[in-house]
Amino acid sequence: MTTIAFIGLGIMGSPMAINLVKAGHTVSGYNRSPEKARPLADAGGRAAESVADAVTGAEIVALMVPDSPDVQHVLTGDDGVFAHAAPGTLVIDFSTIRPDVTRDLAAEAAGRGLRYLDAPVSGGEAGARNAALSIMVGGEPADFAAARPVFDALGRTVIHVGPSGAGQTVKAANQLVVAATIEALAEAVVFLRAYGVDLEAALDVLGGGLAGSAVLAQKRANLLGHSFEPGFRIALHDKDMGIVTSAAREAGVVLPVGALVAQLVASANASGDGALDHSALLRVVERLSGSDRP
Amino acid sequence: MTTIAFIGLGIMGSPMAINLVKAGHTVSGYNRSPEKARPLADAGGRAAESVADAVTGAEIVALMVPDSPDVQHVLTGDDGVFAHAAPGTLVIDFSTIRPDVTRDLAAEAAGRGLRYLDAPVSGGEAGARNAALSIMVGGEPADFAAARPVFDALGRTVIHVGPSGAGQTVKAANQLVVAATIEALAEAVVFLRAYGVDLEAALDVLGGGLAGSAVLAQKRANLLGHSFEPGFRIALHDKDMGIVTSAAREAGVVLPVGALVAQLVASANASGDGALDHSALLRVVERLSGSDRP
Amino acid sequence: MTTIAFIGLGIMGSPMAINLVKAGHTVSGYNRSPEKARPLADAGGRAAESVADAVTGAEIVALMVPDSPDVQHVLTGDDGVFAHAAPGTLVIDFSTIRPDVTRDLAAEAAGRGLRYLDAPVSGGEAGARNAALSIMVGGEPADFAAARPVFDALGRTVIHVGPSGAGQTVKAANQLVVAATIEALAEAVVFLRAYGVDLEAALDVLGGGLAGSAVLAQKRANLLGHSFEPGFRIALHDKDMGIVTSAAREAGVVLPVGALVAQLVASANASGDGALDHSALLRVVERLSGSDRP
Amino acid sequence: MTTIAFIGLGIMGSPMAINLVKAGHTVSGYNRSPEKARPLADAGGRAAESVADAVTGAEIVALMVPDSPDVQHVLTGDDGVFAHAAPGTLVIDFSTIRPDVTRDLAAEAAGRGLRYLDAPVSGGEAGARNAALSIMVGGEPADFAAARPVFDALGRTVIHVGPSGAGQTVKAANQLVVAATIEALAEAVVFLRAYGVDLEAALDVLGGGLAGSAVLAQKRANLLGHSFEPGFRIALHDKDMGIVTSAAREAGVVLPVGALVAQLVASANASGDGALDHSALLRVVERLSGSDRP
Repeated sequence: MTTIAFIGLGIMGSPMAINLVKAGHTVSGYNRSPEKARPLADAGGRAAESVADAVTGAEIVALMVPDSPDVQHVLTGDDGVFAHAAPGTLVIDFSTIRPDVTRDLAAEAAGRGLRYLDAPVSGGEAGARNAALSIMVGGEPADFAAARPVFDALGRTVIHVGPSGAGQTVKAANQLVVAATIEALAEAVVFLRAYGVDLEAALDVLGGGLAGSAVLAQKRANLLGHSFEPGFRIALHDKDMGIVTSAAREAGVVLPVGALVAQLVASANASGDGALDHSALLRVVERLSGSDRP
Repeated sequence: MTTIAFIGLGIMGSPMAINLVKAGHTVSGYNRSPEKARPLADAGGRAAESVADAVTGAEIVALMVPDSPDVQHVLTGDDGVFAHAAPGTLVIDFSTIRPDVTRDLAAEAAGRGLRYLDAPVSGGEAGARNAALSIMVGGEPADFAAARPVFDALGRTVIHVGPSGAGQTVKAANQLVVAATIEALAEAVVFLRAYGVDLEAALDVLGGGLAGSAVLAQKRANLLGHSFEPGFRIALHDKDMGIVTSAAREAGVVLPVGALVAQLVASANASGDGALDHSALLRVVERLSGSDRP
Repeated sequence: MTTIAFIGLGIMGSPMAINLVKAGHTVSGYNRSPEKARPLADAGGRAAESVADAVTGAEIVALMVPDSPDVQHVLTGDDGVFAHAAPGTLVIDFSTIRPDVTRDLAAEAAGRGLRYLDAPVSGGEAGARNAALSIMVGGEPADFAAARPVFDALGRTVIHVGPSGAGQTVKAANQLVVAATIEALAEAVVFLRAYGVDLEAALDVLGGGLAGSAVLAQKRANLLGHSFEPGFRIALHDKDMGIVTSAAREAGVVLPVGALVAQLVASANASGDGALDHSALLRVVERLSGSDRP
Repeated sequence: MTTIAFIGLGIMGSPMAINLVKAGHTVSGYNRSPEKARPLADAGGRAAESVADAVTGAEIVALMVPDSPDVQHVLTGDDGVFAHAAPGTLVIDFSTIRPDVTRDLAAEAAGRGLRYLDAPVSGGEAGARNAALSIMVGGEPADFAAARPVFDALGRTVIHVGPSGAGQTVKAANQLVVAATIEALAEAVVFLRAYGVDLEAALDVLGGGLAGSAVLAQKRANLLGHSFEPGFRIALHDKDMGIVTSAAREAGVVLPVGALVAQLVASANASGDGALDHSALLRVVERLSGSDRP
């Protein structure tokens, strides 16, 4: 079993760290707001006092924080991982951040004798709790192999997709597809409702054919019940769409629907729905159509 | 068992008519180009000489033709169904056409003592061959119940979604979702390829999480192999997106992504890819990005 | 001077008919709501009792009504123009309607020995009052020449753009460009306001360079003052964008921005702003951005 | 008269520097490729050997370079402006770059006792040659007043739009409006051509009404003649649209049409048209519509 530091114990990080404890690993967790470390401590982990405290003695340092600057701060800050991790430590960044930032950090890690994997996840809070995440990993094959037991304790679909940064690229593509699928379903729902169709029956048909998707299966209740407890928050998906569009620009790739969906997610966020589940894109379409829920 | 006239024996209609024969029904099929009736005849059906010939003696008249004007012509023409069907005959239109045209034709049918269901399908050629279609039905519940054995011989998901026209409305919503999902995946593929990610692995991850969809499962080989034999043709999906956008306009519903995707499907059609599978939306994204397949 | 029947005395038609009186023509005006004929009568025209009454004795029959079905009704109805106009009468349709409907009506007119020009206008209520409209005319050159004195009493830019229907096509293109320009300016205004820039100074710069436009010059006060008295109503522009998108679809032309702008105009309409000036597209952008006017 | 260093003597910078000479100023110009300094030298300016050489003794340092990193390099590099400019020197950055980078550089300049204006321009090569640029200036009013003689030698519309960065913000808004206007006209042209309308007459009408714009006046010949010599290059407009979309994201502003137009400009660039005038957006619309120029 492995000694693991886990930095970032939020809605995703906390259940992930707990699943690592359950799998038999020794886990020291750190979170800026210390009360968020309590569930981990209750589950048998240790609440560390600082990043340095968590990292000391760890063979693997896992991160799950919101955005690129957070990862940069946790890794390169004075009290950061790079300053305190022993040579040879394997850093696994589960956060979803910009692929170019990932590549820079991986290079800096290598320069300090550390190993680095980017391993963003998909599957939301439910996936984190149920150890059913999809994990898309970029980095050296040997490091991937070494991290395999950790990944297997957290996810169901664990795939090495390429060199450093590739995990983030695949995650970006994932978020593009997810947002577009939610938006398409939201538009379909508003359309069907306007025509007075039996919406439950209609979604049954859609779900049984080529229009079927994991989004439809998992977000159906949200769309039908107009209930948007996260799940995965609009504010985070908005951040991710910023990654998608800037990464596409860097690569000279044209994403007309991706760019438009990014604007609609930004609209959800700007309209004050940032804390709702991303299925609340439905509310953007409803506002555009001047329709409120009956 | 039932005596059925089947008008329109194309890529979809022919295997559907054959499945009705296999289910024990007596089927007279008619197609404008008579050679398309041969597979039905070989399977034990009868190749009719005309719509009138097919319709005479039929308890159920099924249609599967390309567009609104075709349905209008087959039903209301001088040699049409309405002119030759016996009172009480149940007309089932499997074609995908405009909901408002459907409602008008259903009203006219009622005026002539005929019964009418709109029953557009989803699932493509494979679904038609394997009797695995999704069928979304609009019309009277009693007529739906009467047609149930026919539907069950053709599809796996058969759902009554509302009154006359509702089937078409749901089909329009289905086509919106399918096109948007294909487009999103096409954008993801071009994005991932630009970053040199392992594309097969990446699609495995996407397919295993919230980005998973029937489109990804069924069109994956097309996208990876850049092979676009239909399946479901761009030209037909273009027609369907015209139905979606005009029906949305009629209902005062705003579909930003639907409208944009409609333009991209129109672009595929305008660029000469009308006869390819709708997964050829990938080629639109590639042209926009100035990338050809390696 | 000419005897003219003028059907449709609304916000546009009334000042146009009055300008024809001022130019010395004999004008009989008809409007469904008879009180709308009063300004014309006060200006020296005649308020007719019916279409037939207006048309009888007229050398030219002018129409200015809202939409395709209105034109069809006024022309082909039992009390309509075609039923009462003397052979050789020149029908001039100033309405903005679908090019295909125009071509059908022109053909029907020709079959009855009537002449027909489509002559949609641009310039709004101010242009109508000040005889400063742009008029885009489709039809026979000889008919255009004959109608020239009428056009010159109404507009400043009067151009024959092609055969029957061409006027409507150019008007559709005009409405596409105008809506897109308003939308782009609306987005610029919300963007500039978010950055706390001196908005008046900023619009001065934009107006002085390549971003300058008639829209900016004429709608600047609306955008700055957030005052949206029409001008040209959103509901009419929404109708026009429906013409643009369906005409583009018919011609196999792909208009990504046109299609998206059409959705945004539809959103303005669906949100209850149909009676406001089309510069109220600003309110759609504000809603999307979650910003109200300070 | 003033002693001016001018860094960046490209398609825009060279005629601007020459106009400063013509206005009686003493100008030392520097360009990385030294042969580009020849026209300035021929016109009576001095070709400097290095940034340091140009800056030494200058009261004003003007920059006109392509992008944010270029400005950063010229200002903050070892051989850069900040290292060699005397305290009190006024730096005027005519480049179009990110507003946030501008604000950072202005702060750094202030820390070194330098004054700083951002003064991006609009009007293209022709505007630069004819001293007819629009100049949008951000910074201290006193610095703006001091720079006035320089601005007046270069532009016709010179406006102080706010504090540091405001010039860049207004320029971003300008580029958004210009690109959207070009795209709308390009779509209109393809639409009109598909209908066989007299295109010159049609553009006359559009130009005479609410669809009229500086873009239509100045780019009409490009659109009609399908000739795309710059003018203002697609590659630069693509860079600018990246600034627009990222600045909008930073401010939480939703720009649906801006985002889509950015993708279309990116498509022009990705398709190999980066060196053409931005009116070559027409070619994107033509490719989408499968139409080549007749």
